[in-house]
Amino acid sequence: MILGRFSYKGKLVSGIVEGRSVRISSGRHRGKRVPLEKLKILTPSRPTKIVCVGLNYRDHADELGMPIPEEPVIFLKPSSASLPHGEDIVIPPISQRVDYEAELAVVIGRRCRNVSPEEALHYILGYTCFNDVTARDLQQKDGQWTRAKGFDTFAPFGPFVVTPDMVPQKMEIKLYLNGKLRQKGSTENMIFSVEEIVSFISQVMTLQKGDIIATGTPPGVGPMSPGDEVVVEVSGVGRLVNRVV
Amino acid sequence: MILGRFSYKGKLVSGIVEGRSVRISSGRHRGKRVPLEKLKILTPSRPTKIVCVGLNYRDHADELGMPIPEEPVIFLKPSSASLPHGEDIVIPPISQRVDYEAELAVVIGRRCRNVSPEEALHYILGYTCFNDVTARDLQQKDGQWTRAKGFDTFAPFGPFVVTPDMVPQKMEIKLYLNGKLRQKGSTENMIFSVEEIVSFISQVMTLQKGDIIATGTPPGVGPMSPGDEVVVEVSGVGRLVNRVV
Repeated sequence: MILGRFSYKGKLVSGIVEGRSVRISSGRHRGKRVPLEKLKILTPSRPTKIVCVGLNYRDHADELGMPIPEEPVIFLKPSSASLPHGEDIVIPPISQRVDYEAELAVVIGRRCRNVSPEEALHYILGYTCFNDVTARDLQQKDGQWTRAKGFDTFAPFGPFVVTPDMVPQKMEIKLYLNGKLRQKGSTENMIFSVEEIVSFISQVMTLQKGDIIATGTPPGVGPMSPGDEVVVEVSGVGRLVNRVV
Repeated sequence: MILGRFSYKGKLVSGIVEGRSVRISSGRHRGKRVPLEKLKILTPSRPTKIVCVGLNYRDHADELGMPIPEEPVIFLKPSSASLPHGEDIVIPPISQRVDYEAELAVVIGRRCRNVSPEEALHYILGYTCFNDVTARDLQQKDGQWTRAKGFDTFAPFGPFVVTPDMVPQKMEIKLYLNGKLRQKGSTENMIFSVEEIVSFISQVMTLQKGDIIATGTPPGVGPMSPGDEVVVEVSGVGRLVNRVV
């Protein structure tokens, strides 16, 4: 299934995406089928937290000349940074360089804590596209990445959540800037698998329904400028489109 | 006013603390006066995020031999780390050294973004005590502080929120471990004032009602062991007591 959250006639609704239409699954319009273009797409979940993994692609580690990490390094984005498909990434005046980072993200389906990698799959609602927008200059300045990655609009994700039964074993992750391919990677180059990442994070913090886990970016990160269109594409998962202002 | 959140007869209620009793201000028990010991104290807010400031006391910077920072360095704790007064801090098996860090915290009263230091005070609901519990070994290992500071139970705060009209201009912050004074500081040694911190963070991320901002720790941080009782005391704000298990 492809699951989304939408604004429809001023109401927040959930729905199941079927081709170019959406079957509404909540509220008084429940059961109604509506063309996708009549709905405003919201983020496909409302996370209590957004947990991201640093360096997680072998080819990206090679590109940076960094050793392969023994454990995931995690960091948080505040939920206030969430941005839906179709809305604008706002470059803050304080930064001179804001980069895209295309990622596959996991959406948690049920509260979990201390789960093994084998159990982790039971707690995953599905997958979505994620852009780990980063003020590169502030990241270097601060040491801690929270400010550089925590600005409002710096966590675009969506457009929808695709359940695990519908996604391929190996996913291709691509980033297009103004139509030009800038990042390309495959989940087969991940250092830590999705199951390992979910398990690792659940040893630290209780994960809640709707929480987002971004699994790291493949090679080719680079800067964006106002007016740019940035697209994160994950095969079988979707296409997340945002403009930069 | 001194504001709290409680569990009373199985229901979540808000209340105003008056001496040793609480006047309930929400739900069907509204208006009722109940002795404090008949209520279970919960965290005084439910934050969407907990933002913390690194090095913010001149004397602590001196103690560490670190230069005075030009800007606050911020980091996040997940809301899943929240812990009320009276509940147990759980040391995770993966860490060999877990430290206390006594802090004054600000509780945000209204949504705000891009506010000046002068405006910031209008968005502060009040103050509370905070313990920035930190797995020191993991902090050093990871570089990023998220894991070291993000475990469940690593963000005790409370017991209540004290509104700005009731707190002194200069607050003393003390930490007692098993009754022995271990940290002592005064907010007059803060490098960045509360107003400056709230303003700075609001330039990055939208702050929501109930969000917690911890303003840094004075000198004297140190380790805790299972069985210890740890008390954060802020003059005019309260006493936050937790046990370590």
